[in-house]
Amino acid sequence: MARGVRPNHATILEDEGPREECAVFGIYGADEASAHTTLGLHALQHRGQEATGIVSFDGKRFHAQRGVGEVGTVLNKEDVIERLVGHAAIGHNRYATTGEGAVHNIQPLFAEFAFGGFAIAHNGNLTNAQALHDRLVHGGSLFQSTTDTEVIVHLIARSMRSTLVDRLVDALHQVEGAYSLVALSQKKLIGVRDPLGIRPLVLGRLGDAHIMASESCAFDIIGAEFIRDVEPGELLVIDESGITSLFPFAKQPSRFCVFEYIYFARPDSVMEGRGVYEARKRIGAELAAESHPEGGADVIVPVPDSGVPAAIGYAAASGVPFEYGIIRNHYVGRTFIEPTAQIRHLGVKLKHNANRSMVEGKRIILVDDSIVRGTTSRKIVEMMRSAGAKEIHMRISSPPTANPCYYGIDTPEKDDLIAARLDPAGIAKEIGADSLAFISIDGLYRAMGKDGRDNAAPAFCDACFTGDYPIRLIDRDNKKAAKRDPKPIA
Amino acid sequence: MARGVRPNHATILEDEGPREECAVFGIYGADEASAHTTLGLHALQHRGQEATGIVSFDGKRFHAQRGVGEVGTVLNKEDVIERLVGHAAIGHNRYATTGEGAVHNIQPLFAEFAFGGFAIAHNGNLTNAQALHDRLVHGGSLFQSTTDTEVIVHLIARSMRSTLVDRLVDALHQVEGAYSLVALSQKKLIGVRDPLGIRPLVLGRLGDAHIMASESCAFDIIGAEFIRDVEPGELLVIDESGITSLFPFAKQPSRFCVFEYIYFARPDSVMEGRGVYEARKRIGAELAAESHPEGGADVIVPVPDSGVPAAIGYAAASGVPFEYGIIRNHYVGRTFIEPTAQIRHLGVKLKHNANRSMVEGKRIILVDDSIVRGTTSRKIVEMMRSAGAKEIHMRISSPPTANPCYYGIDTPEKDDLIAARLDPAGIAKEIGADSLAFISIDGLYRAMGKDGRDNAAPAFCDACFTGDYPIRLIDRDNKKAAKRDPKPIA
Amino acid sequence: MARGVRPNHATILEDEGPREECAVFGIYGADEASAHTTLGLHALQHRGQEATGIVSFDGKRFHAQRGVGEVGTVLNKEDVIERLVGHAAIGHNRYATTGEGAVHNIQPLFAEFAFGGFAIAHNGNLTNAQALHDRLVHGGSLFQSTTDTEVIVHLIARSMRSTLVDRLVDALHQVEGAYSLVALSQKKLIGVRDPLGIRPLVLGRLGDAHIMASESCAFDIIGAEFIRDVEPGELLVIDESGITSLFPFAKQPSRFCVFEYIYFARPDSVMEGRGVYEARKRIGAELAAESHPEGGADVIVPVPDSGVPAAIGYAAASGVPFEYGIIRNHYVGRTFIEPTAQIRHLGVKLKHNANRSMVEGKRIILVDDSIVRGTTSRKIVEMMRSAGAKEIHMRISSPPTANPCYYGIDTPEKDDLIAARLDPAGIAKEIGADSLAFISIDGLYRAMGKDGRDNAAPAFCDACFTGDYPIRLIDRDNKKAAKRDPKPIA
Amino acid sequence: MARGVRPNHATILEDEGPREECAVFGIYGADEASAHTTLGLHALQHRGQEATGIVSFDGKRFHAQRGVGEVGTVLNKEDVIERLVGHAAIGHNRYATTGEGAVHNIQPLFAEFAFGGFAIAHNGNLTNAQALHDRLVHGGSLFQSTTDTEVIVHLIARSMRSTLVDRLVDALHQVEGAYSLVALSQKKLIGVRDPLGIRPLVLGRLGDAHIMASESCAFDIIGAEFIRDVEPGELLVIDESGITSLFPFAKQPSRFCVFEYIYFARPDSVMEGRGVYEARKRIGAELAAESHPEGGADVIVPVPDSGVPAAIGYAAASGVPFEYGIIRNHYVGRTFIEPTAQIRHLGVKLKHNANRSMVEGKRIILVDDSIVRGTTSRKIVEMMRSAGAKEIHMRISSPPTANPCYYGIDTPEKDDLIAARLDPAGIAKEIGADSLAFISIDGLYRAMGKDGRDNAAPAFCDACFTGDYPIRLIDRDNKKAAKRDPKPIA
Repeated sequence: MARGVRPNHATILEDEGPREECAVFGIYGADEASAHTTLGLHALQHRGQEATGIVSFDGKRFHAQRGVGEVGTVLNKEDVIERLVGHAAIGHNRYATTGEGAVHNIQPLFAEFAFGGFAIAHNGNLTNAQALHDRLVHGGSLFQSTTDTEVIVHLIARSMRSTLVDRLVDALHQVEGAYSLVALSQKKLIGVRDPLGIRPLVLGRLGDAHIMASESCAFDIIGAEFIRDVEPGELLVIDESGITSLFPFAKQPSRFCVFEYIYFARPDSVMEGRGVYEARKRIGAELAAESHPEGGADVIVPVPDSGVPAAIGYAAASGVPFEYGIIRNHYVGRTFIEPTAQIRHLGVKLKHNANRSMVEGKRIILVDDSIVRGTTSRKIVEMMRSAGAKEIHMRISSPPTANPCYYGIDTPEKDDLIAARLDPAGIAKEIGADSLAFISIDGLYRAMGKDGRDNAAPAFCDACFTGDYPIRLIDRDNKKAAKRDPKPIA
Repeated sequence: MARGVRPNHATILEDEGPREECAVFGIYGADEASAHTTLGLHALQHRGQEATGIVSFDGKRFHAQRGVGEVGTVLNKEDVIERLVGHAAIGHNRYATTGEGAVHNIQPLFAEFAFGGFAIAHNGNLTNAQALHDRLVHGGSLFQSTTDTEVIVHLIARSMRSTLVDRLVDALHQVEGAYSLVALSQKKLIGVRDPLGIRPLVLGRLGDAHIMASESCAFDIIGAEFIRDVEPGELLVIDESGITSLFPFAKQPSRFCVFEYIYFARPDSVMEGRGVYEARKRIGAELAAESHPEGGADVIVPVPDSGVPAAIGYAAASGVPFEYGIIRNHYVGRTFIEPTAQIRHLGVKLKHNANRSMVEGKRIILVDDSIVRGTTSRKIVEMMRSAGAKEIHMRISSPPTANPCYYGIDTPEKDDLIAARLDPAGIAKEIGADSLAFISIDGLYRAMGKDGRDNAAPAFCDACFTGDYPIRLIDRDNKKAAKRDPKPIA
Repeated sequence: MARGVRPNHATILEDEGPREECAVFGIYGADEASAHTTLGLHALQHRGQEATGIVSFDGKRFHAQRGVGEVGTVLNKEDVIERLVGHAAIGHNRYATTGEGAVHNIQPLFAEFAFGGFAIAHNGNLTNAQALHDRLVHGGSLFQSTTDTEVIVHLIARSMRSTLVDRLVDALHQVEGAYSLVALSQKKLIGVRDPLGIRPLVLGRLGDAHIMASESCAFDIIGAEFIRDVEPGELLVIDESGITSLFPFAKQPSRFCVFEYIYFARPDSVMEGRGVYEARKRIGAELAAESHPEGGADVIVPVPDSGVPAAIGYAAASGVPFEYGIIRNHYVGRTFIEPTAQIRHLGVKLKHNANRSMVEGKRIILVDDSIVRGTTSRKIVEMMRSAGAKEIHMRISSPPTANPCYYGIDTPEKDDLIAARLDPAGIAKEIGADSLAFISIDGLYRAMGKDGRDNAAPAFCDACFTGDYPIRLIDRDNKKAAKRDPKPIA
Repeated sequence: MARGVRPNHATILEDEGPREECAVFGIYGADEASAHTTLGLHALQHRGQEATGIVSFDGKRFHAQRGVGEVGTVLNKEDVIERLVGHAAIGHNRYATTGEGAVHNIQPLFAEFAFGGFAIAHNGNLTNAQALHDRLVHGGSLFQSTTDTEVIVHLIARSMRSTLVDRLVDALHQVEGAYSLVALSQKKLIGVRDPLGIRPLVLGRLGDAHIMASESCAFDIIGAEFIRDVEPGELLVIDESGITSLFPFAKQPSRFCVFEYIYFARPDSVMEGRGVYEARKRIGAELAAESHPEGGADVIVPVPDSGVPAAIGYAAASGVPFEYGIIRNHYVGRTFIEPTAQIRHLGVKLKHNANRSMVEGKRIILVDDSIVRGTTSRKIVEMMRSAGAKEIHMRISSPPTANPCYYGIDTPEKDDLIAARLDPAGIAKEIGADSLAFISIDGLYRAMGKDGRDNAAPAFCDACFTGDYPIRLIDRDNKKAAKRDPKPIA
């Protein structure tokens, strides 16, 4: 979806992390397809918590339920599930926008073409969505949402090809960017991954039904079997006659998003043949090998929860014990009273608290997955310091995040990225740590089983670290070229 | 809006009446345009109670608030009004549909054209909306609602004309049916009445601001001055340079809906130069002249509230005293517990009760505005009978309603209209009245100041009484010709 | 209930009228007793719209549902009715208080005594509630509400008598004030009217079931038969063995509230042998006889809705035609946006509008039931004036309201009553009418069938007009004697 | 609170654990006392998630906000915090009851005594509440809730002593059971722990303000300083003149609840001088020493989250690596669609998922804190088995839970406790584990720093393991003696 849309959180420590924007799920050939989809979306809740939706097809009619909130909120009523009947369904999780417009943006989008209904859900970001949008509007198309997904829908509607699959391919030949799509027509469930395979999409099976989802953990929750990753540039058509695999794009070397391993994916998912938990442990071990403090340390403390596997890997590699020196309050997901100025200076710890007995008087190594703005890291270091830590060495299981993502991850502008402004020593000073080290880009590739980064043909998309963007940024470049007039909104 | 959409009420006596489907309101040149619009929509609440909305423009941006419920529910929060800033706004009241789709159908519709934003609200019904819809979809247009209003929006988007007004005229030349529209662009407030002027639209002024509304009572609530009716076929453009009047259609004799006088409009509104309350009184007087029972009567009892003015006119003309023999419970608007079978046989009177002291032992004349299905009339007659009425003579201030409306009023299918099946004597028998008379069609025209109905050139649309439809019914005829396949829904 | 509790309305014209505070309903011996009670409370909605509740008994257990809102809101769900099972139930309508405390105040109150459960609902006001409350608290009783009803409950709990009826009588011998109570124990439905019979309570029958209610219109809605008024000072016990009538108090001449006839009761109710609608018509006729303007008038205009029957009586007596010169918007019950200062000066007419064609150029007689603060009357007169009325003569179907009610009607303090400050001429000037007349106190009694007020033994409570309070005002006098300290609230 | 009240959860794995029922918090002498209390209650959310409330005092008035839901739901609006003004406040978290009665049960309770307002909040359970309740009701007291806390309030109201503290002590001399109370009067904040100190209560300071809370983590969140535990049998009075410590009960050896260490308390809390996280690690180490499988193991897998610290301790002691073999979905707190029968057989894993790469082909040791009914353990073992675990050895960081708690923890009846029916071998068979061991009772005491359990004078309350109840169970014994009649409910 479009990068401009930002969630609006208030909890203190969640401000920091980059945020994945979407999850997709599709199933064909199952009784109670919507119930399966609801469960799959629940397992993928970490990829988008603020809106969700399902469109199902029962052989005659499509049924939709979309709303603001988590899966359990939007899809929790039995009658909803009873209403969303059918043997095929697709679903989507995303961050919501505020205001009236939000409802139109919640996916899956649904359109009624001349040849029938069509639903689509998208994870990723198109880099020429605005350009295509403007062209379509000039031709008389009316947009109802601000999602880039709707661009694809209009391109299908305007295509002169005759079959739905041909029209979809026609549309995808016009878009650029990262996308993993699932779509549902009256006959077919379709899944596509962009030619570079930047965002994940996996294929599974449950009895006679076929499933596609952003991550394999969505198969586990319903006891489905993982078959394989959908390949980069592959378009899968699932219908009564089974699965058909098409490769409608010119072949290119793939560039899967390495940040999925570092942060976004659930640790129990398997992506492109690698278990995420193990990948994180290997990154932790590599990090220990590269940058363990010379003076040693007493304890490895993960920043929960995303820093835990890397910390376990670091602890095992370094021989220093792993301990929960920070305790997370699991009830903070909910909106919370905004502390007034008078009590804000107390340094309120809504989400984390120091576990003083594990920290006091100790040399600690804090392991986290990334530093984005730096504000959270500063608070964590302060918390450790006031709990009595003697030395605080921060170790980060990713290289410095110095560039925004344009392929579907919600990151701040470059100016707000601390690593775009400061080197590690400068960051260490700003966050108050005694030392700070990031894993090197080559160390990261080694942890992923490579010999290091092959700069001529890198195996992953690592643009947020390297600035090496594998897909043109047309909208961004147009925007830079000419500051656009403010647009009316509805 | 499309006739297919039906509200789903449960209150017992409200089932009977025909229901107007919409009100529109537009204002240009006022501070707090949305507050004025909210009040105007409140005054027009009787024309549609189940959804409402406003789109405003503040010189830079459009702002929208639309929701299911009455005006006081959807637009009651100060912050909403604070958000809907601007000097121009349009608003709409309507009956809501159920399910997720409802939200997309709530007007005003908003579209972003290549040349800017555009909002539109519609009272009436297009008789070729489905035909146009199908043609547009085949050309690649995507519909988001099931309102016929969106057909107009797409026709504007696809028009090859250059200015907005020209595009709107281009679109209106393609549609057939009854419509009173208000529309808002970044520069203009536009109002249009269809060439026959079937639905009402009036023009007013408040200081420097200009206003258009379905009825003049929407001016009174804000102290605005009534200027004149918008004329049939007239297109008014209001902008910085003042008011411009266009007549883009071939001139035709007008055919204003006579049922607005009989039932829909508020009694304090003035339409086409006639006060509605007075018109109803005159109909009542004419009814007395035509059909006062030979044996005389003791008391004139209105069926509240819509039968009151005609009953007052009838009483004055006949010399028989007017009394409230039926008391209405004003709290019945709210949804109410569905009585169980066990107590339903008690003949529960949720909305009306007999005022026994005015009825017992008397020969009463019950005055009502119309009989649609006949079920309410039967209950009312029963209630009077069990309150001790000696004779019950029912007098109806409209001719028999024997034909459905296709021009914006929600009436049952012909088969459900009791007057399509039975003559007055048969109806009297079915509802249990001692006698029943409707005003004659000529009597109705006389009450409206004519010499009777000029069948060659009737002054009003009276299709629901006469079956003489002044505008072609294209969709209806197509539907009769070929039962369409069931369509997928979202 | 206690006078201190005030509803908080914002609609403009509703601020004026005095407000009845409660309705009660009880039924014994019916299947689906709660469904009958719900319908009865609905018919009594005019006596209290802001909170409602039911307690039922199913032979083993009591069930309760109480909430803020109208009957249709609080009691509309089928499952609620399904949950409130039983053959006996009592119910209550009232105005709600704001804040958390409100929930504790909603009646019926329920208490579990040593000898079993007990529910009670009350219409009226105790004049020594505070004194009793303070005495009970000193003895260790804990209050959960601020209703005077709870005082009765505690007196029952503390009574040393052995049977429930004896304990209730013991409690009632200690309280002073106006009350019509219904109560429900595991064995009995009990109804009581205070010795003067100030508030109404009627007895009815539906098949084998017995019913008590504040007004007879609650019988009509379920098709029940009116038997008789419960007599002043009578205590009715309804149980398996039928009805038992007790008169536990010393006999006194009754003093029924005359304002019930003038304003509060529904016109279709019958109270103390008089139909309310007819009583109002007779008051209107008497008013015409007393004070018809010498110069004559063109039209009688009721202030809707409560002024209508008196206006009909006035019109018939004076020979001047009755016309709806003011149209009421029936949708104003709902909360509405508070107009901002900028548009408030427009004189927004949310609830009423002039019907200009009936008013313009005419000498009108405005008939209303009462003037409390005078603000509404001023607005109504202004509205008529700006609709072109040539002369405006206001006629009021009650004597001047110059004293607060302490017996269960929510009236302003004496300082806020315009008739306590000004004579009719002064009020006429303040509200802008050309003339103003109230019915005389003797005229009122004549309309009620008396020869005039017998000052030695008046037939009604008319304290709000005469200041002749038939029951001591202990709490008011104590309060005057010593301004109490502010009390903590919860 | 009373044991009879049970929360009603549906999430699958949460069914198993015993549940703490309450948290209390009180503060005196702070600006924005309610904001501090809100934050403290948030930190204590793990002790009760279904209802919460605050009562504050501003020097003149008490203010209350209580509702169903988590702290962030009930207390999230700024205006609530703005309304709850004052320098002193108490708060409470608890499990909610369903139905109308729930609202009356939400604490803090508030009562207005003759000498002023009084609020109280309670963690624990009285074992003679029913007996006292019955006695009070016979004396004319009326109860509004079903909490045992209200018994204390009535005892205070009925006490003949003169000061509030004396009345409270008088009341507490009559109750038996476990309780940690905070109470607020117009002058004082009071805290009490029962003579055995079964439930926790700690004292802290923030600037000039004093605080009491169930756990020290409530101090950390607002940066307050931990001073000490309130001692068993101690009654602390905090007012303008500072802190006064009273010991109104006969001294007894303390019996702190050992289950607070094992499961309930947050790991970052410090209780009775012991850090909870460290205590759990020591239990894990002791467990390894007692029962490490002879054949060895490949990996230690905690059942998240409560099993984690013990698993870390176990891993360190045994030298076997600690790995997250089970991944928890953090979004499951929300209510979730009840899976239909058709998909339930899939073994849906809403809350946990196997991390296959850490489990497959391995001999694993599953570490959990307790086994209550056994159903969760069976599902966890199945999940591990189907993820390919070669051997599954379950190790439990508490002795077998064979007896219900009557002192404030919500446990099933004895018949539902699997350890009351089966020995460890039988349980292992039922849950499908290859082996199962609980820590021994002496091992548990060793981990707590003792030489083992001194059966003559055990240092802790361990009744759930040993059946050795240190306080009489009067209500339970009365109930056994005579099955009580069903009571009416409201």
